[in-house]
Amino acid sequence: MGNKDFSDDQLAAMSPTEFRAIVRRVEWTKPSITACRSYAQANLAVVPKDMAFDFLLFCYRNPRPCPIIDVTEVGGYHPKVVAPQADLRTDLPRYRVYKDGELIDEPTDVTAYWRDDLVAFLIGCSASFEWSLKAANVQYRFPGAYTSNIACIPAGCFHGHVVVSCRLMKGGFDAVRAIQISSRHIAVHGPPIHIGDPALIGIEDLYHPDVGGVGLTFSVEPSEIPLFWGCGITPQVVALESEVPFMITHYPFHMFVTDRFAEELAAL
Amino acid sequence: MGNKDFSDDQLAAMSPTEFRAIVRRVEWTKPSITACRSYAQANLAVVPKDMAFDFLLFCYRNPRPCPIIDVTEVGGYHPKVVAPQADLRTDLPRYRVYKDGELIDEPTDVTAYWRDDLVAFLIGCSASFEWSLKAANVQYRFPGAYTSNIACIPAGCFHGHVVVSCRLMKGGFDAVRAIQISSRHIAVHGPPIHIGDPALIGIEDLYHPDVGGVGLTFSVEPSEIPLFWGCGITPQVVALESEVPFMITHYPFHMFVTDRFAEELAAL
Repeated sequence: MGNKDFSDDQLAAMSPTEFRAIVRRVEWTKPSITACRSYAQANLAVVPKDMAFDFLLFCYRNPRPCPIIDVTEVGGYHPKVVAPQADLRTDLPRYRVYKDGELIDEPTDVTAYWRDDLVAFLIGCSASFEWSLKAANVQYRFPGAYTSNIACIPAGCFHGHVVVSCRLMKGGFDAVRAIQISSRHIAVHGPPIHIGDPALIGIEDLYHPDVGGVGLTFSVEPSEIPLFWGCGITPQVVALESEVPFMITHYPFHMFVTDRFAEELAAL
Repeated sequence: MGNKDFSDDQLAAMSPTEFRAIVRRVEWTKPSITACRSYAQANLAVVPKDMAFDFLLFCYRNPRPCPIIDVTEVGGYHPKVVAPQADLRTDLPRYRVYKDGELIDEPTDVTAYWRDDLVAFLIGCSASFEWSLKAANVQYRFPGAYTSNIACIPAGCFHGHVVVSCRLMKGGFDAVRAIQISSRHIAVHGPPIHIGDPALIGIEDLYHPDVGGVGLTFSVEPSEIPLFWGCGITPQVVALESEVPFMITHYPFHMFVTDRFAEELAAL
């Protein structure tokens, strides 16, 4: 799979339609985080209809890691609320496919895996409020995502641990502002679920994120404060821990870009 | 059914456990609105499991009238999140029972109607933030609830119109403060869905609420501004409009009192 060479600035300037088009043509199979300035991005989780009630209830009970922003009709792959023209089978840069609790594939297109009984859930992504943090000149580093020791509230067959994304704020004032700003963005994880010592939520090594991300290549400074948000990668951990028969998700950091501004979702 | 004579002040001073006990003993079958100062109250909607996914999705798609605060296990009647000791079959002052799109009963106990395949949904009620309005000395009148011409976003078999509750604010400053305060209370309907002319949302006669309430016995003053919030009576209109095979709800204004403070739910 070849990737055309797009700079972060080029990606940020694209409309969601433009970005999804290069993704659909497999010209971009890398992370989406820098794409489409100010637009909300979404994590994906797809399950068969017979598990859809339990999964929807699971998301309801765990709104910080799994805030739902759209649910397709059974068998449908057009997210009518947030991007009705898009195709969830092709418009994400990379996917993961789980079967009987095992990861079986990481394709750039899941058309071959699609079934008439699937229901797709889009889960708001915190990349969406990063534009608001940047606009407010909040200074931070983003090492990646970690599996915490916080148990999700189970629902039916779904259980597992909360995945969190970490942002290291450069100081206490920025930490407070990041909490204020993200609290408004309730549809894309809202406020952090933890602030301070990573060990308190079971993260032993902040430098090497177990779920994904670049980690930290230089030391945490004394003035830096780690903030942890619920992360939409959580269903992937749940797929493994719950040994679900079938689930399709996005690949970490390779999200779906919606047609809605993050600010629109904040005001819903 | 005899009602013991409790004053509004006596009802407000009761704990949720005390209030639910007098309800369970059928000593109180009247509205719950003034009961248990500062505690969140909830509307009830109960459907069979085979309709539960559609109903949960319906609530997701219509968060202003139907913000879910708890969902029982299949067949269960204990709301584990908001009041684990309570019994949803007996602890509301009055119920409504719908069958094939018709209202068939308005009992004070639904034990006889309970089935092993039922799932109960608790929907946050705006009575919960009235304590916060009062604490802020916001002045208003409450005429009641109305069927609007706003269509809910359908889900599966569920469709119908949004029911709204009206509060007439005594002036523009109080209207702004009521929007600020209720916006924080996102789990109990959040901000209003309309402000101003009732006719714009299909309400022809503000003086005589079609869904319930005392109405207005003296004229709207020029300085009064009507604010309209989504209302948890909406599923009752949906039961009729969608001709659902079976549904149990609370009777309007006869809500379930939870063990959670409204402020707790605001901070979730």
